[in-house]
Amino acid sequence: MVQQNGTGEQSSDPDYFQTNPKPPNLDRQITLARSFIEQHASENRRVALVASGGTTVPLENQTVRFIDNFSAGTRGATSAEYFLEAGYAVIFLHRQFSLLPYSRHYSHSTNCFLDFMTHNDAGAVVVESEYQQQMAQVLSRYRKAKEDNTLLLLPFTTVNEYLWLLRGLAMQMQPLGANGLFYLAAAVSDFFVPAERMVEHKIQSSEDFQEELTNGNGARAPAAHMDGKRLIINLDPVPKFLKLLVDGWAPRSMIVSFKLETDPSLLAKKARYALEKYSHHLVIGNLLNTRKWEVLFVSADGGERWIRVPAGRRSKSVTNWDHDSQPQEPAIEIESWIVPEVAKEHTKMIEKAASKQ
Amino acid sequence: MVQQNGTGEQSSDPDYFQTNPKPPNLDRQITLARSFIEQHASENRRVALVASGGTTVPLENQTVRFIDNFSAGTRGATSAEYFLEAGYAVIFLHRQFSLLPYSRHYSHSTNCFLDFMTHNDAGAVVVESEYQQQMAQVLSRYRKAKEDNTLLLLPFTTVNEYLWLLRGLAMQMQPLGANGLFYLAAAVSDFFVPAERMVEHKIQSSEDFQEELTNGNGARAPAAHMDGKRLIINLDPVPKFLKLLVDGWAPRSMIVSFKLETDPSLLAKKARYALEKYSHHLVIGNLLNTRKWEVLFVSADGGERWIRVPAGRRSKSVTNWDHDSQPQEPAIEIESWIVPEVAKEHTKMIEKAASKQ
Repeated sequence: MVQQNGTGEQSSDPDYFQTNPKPPNLDRQITLARSFIEQHASENRRVALVASGGTTVPLENQTVRFIDNFSAGTRGATSAEYFLEAGYAVIFLHRQFSLLPYSRHYSHSTNCFLDFMTHNDAGAVVVESEYQQQMAQVLSRYRKAKEDNTLLLLPFTTVNEYLWLLRGLAMQMQPLGANGLFYLAAAVSDFFVPAERMVEHKIQSSEDFQEELTNGNGARAPAAHMDGKRLIINLDPVPKFLKLLVDGWAPRSMIVSFKLETDPSLLAKKARYALEKYSHHLVIGNLLNTRKWEVLFVSADGGERWIRVPAGRRSKSVTNWDHDSQPQEPAIEIESWIVPEVAKEHTKMIEKAASKQ
Repeated sequence: MVQQNGTGEQSSDPDYFQTNPKPPNLDRQITLARSFIEQHASENRRVALVASGGTTVPLENQTVRFIDNFSAGTRGATSAEYFLEAGYAVIFLHRQFSLLPYSRHYSHSTNCFLDFMTHNDAGAVVVESEYQQQMAQVLSRYRKAKEDNTLLLLPFTTVNEYLWLLRGLAMQMQPLGANGLFYLAAAVSDFFVPAERMVEHKIQSSEDFQEELTNGNGARAPAAHMDGKRLIINLDPVPKFLKLLVDGWAPRSMIVSFKLETDPSLLAKKARYALEKYSHHLVIGNLLNTRKWEVLFVSADGGERWIRVPAGRRSKSVTNWDHDSQPQEPAIEIESWIVPEVAKEHTKMIEKAASKQ
């Protein structure tokens, strides 16, 4: 189903949504989003869709094994808080059980959640006094977002769920016009197993049980097979959804994508390449090892600039540790600088759109 | 490095620990375990090593993508609580950020953690009254385990970390003799990328950047390569560590392994096969879709029996929802039946060992 265009470039697969099944709970999620968006559209509020966490690629229909993309969801969950602070309503499209705005300060911690708790004299469970002040603040902000109905949490797990949700939400956001913003910080798989090549049952490693994999299940050209003692997995490219988003699903919104690399020599080149390929507004580049300290803004006007925060002391959220965090946390959450910069660009775009009307 | 024995069966790879690097924090973890085990050995207490959660297989050294095994850690975290209740000291060897004993009642919930909290009249953060009673109970048990030093939490992420830890811990547990128990509920990868075939940087999907993958990094026969637009991953079998555990690392301990299948027709056959292959004491078989309601005990004496709990109402832990949970939770946590059965078998084994001395 892959199509070639004139330049030999792979174009997006229009058949994707015909050949890969709609997630069972999609309609319910879209219904939630519709009323959320309608409310904020009627109040002329900006709405940011913040995508966060990694997507999975199941290797079997009854999934025991899957491929995953590294992401605790720190960038997305932290950014969502700053978008709320900047007056946006936020649709938080996140990997289930990844970090969430506000609760992120207390989850994925080296402490067990119960370490924050104690019994008071009356035997009731209360928060330990040393955590009281910060938690009171975090709880207030979380409650405000709930009362104002400015934060909608929508979970996904697989890349298929993510793509269906992204398309469905983008369609719903069209009435927002330039007030819509896509902040695509999720780590989305580049490769996947199309539904038609998926095996039903757990792939059997033991040689005594392999016929179930190679003969059974009715999968055409199954995505996994044994070659002697080795397991061979072959994956198809995920359609270039960013192209579809920019050209078709969200033509009037601001679109910001992220580019994560591990090789410093590739980062600027790949960020620029993505921007030119998809013709959206901003690519934020970051390196796996330094992503909490520095990011590279590459924008459509040709500009490239680094945003860097000082290292040296621990973050305000002393309780929040990524599982790969460096010994030193940055002094400032870099998202507190990224989000206002993005919002500024968004303002310009909205003004430009208004002047054209 | 794979060796064949006389039966054509693949034997465990003695070179694994020579060719796959020791995790940087292993020594620190083993030191913690040593003093924990010494204390309980001196008090003649049984010690259960409970392995829980899935292991990952990184596809790059600077890991962006990895293969994972499905497991929230429910079986392990729940079982650990019942082992503590049964008087065991527990080494909880778990996937980082998977469910933990006690805190499991409030994490991986559809509720955000902050939904359990409220401000009281004095402005302090306290637990909502409706959750007070249960949380007070859970917190008491957690604190008791901490005070008695009967629960040691040791995290892993990759299958390599898991194997090094399992070997190291088993060696430390040898002085426990028959008082040691291995309850291997972790979902361990069957396939992995050996260190020598690992690429350094993120695998590039775009055709314009592929030379870094195929030419670079110095990996011999890299585990991933592009074939046109497809990504091909080829994985080696993980050495049969259970064989090494039974024969070499923990010859006097009781060893219980789990077998998770999706195909009901394979379960009993595969559980029996594993028991015969590794000559340990007990295999607990379970199916992905019914694992909270029923498990199959397959033991060395030839016995096979199902343990089944009634369905029909929600679990006592109304706050604890697995991301794949069925609409109805079982009325009873099945681990509250599994663990006492295992402990009974363990008692028999200890008595038998004592009678031989």
